[in-house]
Amino acid sequence: MGFEKYYDLNLRETKKKIKESVGFNDFIVQAINNIDETNKAINLLAKRLREWYELYNPELSRKIIEHDKFIEEILAGNPKRDSDSMGAEISKEDYQPILELAGEIQALFIFKSRQEAYLDNLMKENCPNIREVAGSLIGARLVALAGDLKRLIMFPSSTVQLLGAEKALFRHMKTGAKSPKYGVIVQHPFVISAPKESKGKAARMLADKILLAAKVDYFKGEFIGERLNKELKEKFK
Amino acid sequence: MGFEKYYDLNLRETKKKIKESVGFNDFIVQAINNIDETNKAINLLAKRLREWYELYNPELSRKIIEHDKFIEEILAGNPKRDSDSMGAEISKEDYQPILELAGEIQALFIFKSRQEAYLDNLMKENCPNIREVAGSLIGARLVALAGDLKRLIMFPSSTVQLLGAEKALFRHMKTGAKSPKYGVIVQHPFVISAPKESKGKAARMLADKILLAAKVDYFKGEFIGERLNKELKEKFK
Repeated sequence: MGFEKYYDLNLRETKKKIKESVGFNDFIVQAINNIDETNKAINLLAKRLREWYELYNPELSRKIIEHDKFIEEILAGNPKRDSDSMGAEISKEDYQPILELAGEIQALFIFKSRQEAYLDNLMKENCPNIREVAGSLIGARLVALAGDLKRLIMFPSSTVQLLGAEKALFRHMKTGAKSPKYGVIVQHPFVISAPKESKGKAARMLADKILLAAKVDYFKGEFIGERLNKELKEKFK
Repeated sequence: MGFEKYYDLNLRETKKKIKESVGFNDFIVQAINNIDETNKAINLLAKRLREWYELYNPELSRKIIEHDKFIEEILAGNPKRDSDSMGAEISKEDYQPILELAGEIQALFIFKSRQEAYLDNLMKENCPNIREVAGSLIGARLVALAGDLKRLIMFPSSTVQLLGAEKALFRHMKTGAKSPKYGVIVQHPFVISAPKESKGKAARMLADKILLAAKVDYFKGEFIGERLNKELKEKFK
């Protein structure tokens, strides 16, 4: 076989392998990254909206902290201003673009929840145990941070516990600052609800169970997520 | 008059002054900041879309550099893939969220252009000369960077030339790096089209004219924007 023919064959094979390597791991990674970037976009624009709206009604922004509720209130019609509000009268012409911004952010919220439903479905099909123990958002973030499910199960549980805290970890190593106790799993209800002095312990236990769940998912084992959750709750009594 | 009564009166007066101080300057600042943040949101999400879409058709992303055209192409229907594409087949279910992301970004583009039209109107009404010389986007950015029109006209033209280059300026002062030649006006066609060796000179001349335009706008003078533009072009021959 001449070199050129060999080269062509090799190239074709490589392309085929790249093609075939696309799978649920990629979709999970894309979906969660998209949700996180959408969140960033929502926060950018919601901060804008608040500043802009404060010209008209500065008191409302302080009253309603959650962006989605703040936007709902505005879109539901001019919220009443306090009689001694510091806000200015604004012409209809100058109020319209504020309303449009609120509408745009609301559309992003709806978009995000649709994307979350898609991700939840992906996790249900491919990582049912991780989904049950970690929740689909945190679970997907762990898969994305590891690269894919296979790489996730290769980690020791102490690494799983810290995934997403890389910055704090490097700061710890470089400057001797306090070492981080948890990465993205800090947002898990199990860690949030743990008393302050045992948050580290809760994170360690949770990481253990997530890793176990991930291994079962990788090897297409049975659904043991509920049992893992029960064990987690009992251990913490 | 007792102290409490005096205090109440004072508070009422202050609130009234704050109310009355809201004006076109605020709307210009809010509108341009909103446009710039929308741009950031678009870029965040468009990068996401490209990465995601590359699973299916990696070749298209390299072919079409402009985000808006890339999105149009995708929304117009599955663009054909090369016969030897490295992209994978993707189920309808996994393609749908990609399409929705593309739709969301397109909505943001439309939103942005409506906001630009609003800003352009504001500038036409309140800063017609700045708008003619600097364009409404760059003009509004200068007003926003200065704080308002009044503060803008207090600056020497060398400052107007550098507005928006604060970071580079401080780097220059701290580390002795090259001093910046221009801030946001670098995006003006007059500077862009100037030959490389005279970009600095073009920026200086442009800043002069913008500052003159701003002064006329602040004092509600006549429309001299076209004359200023003509002088600018002639000087550079």
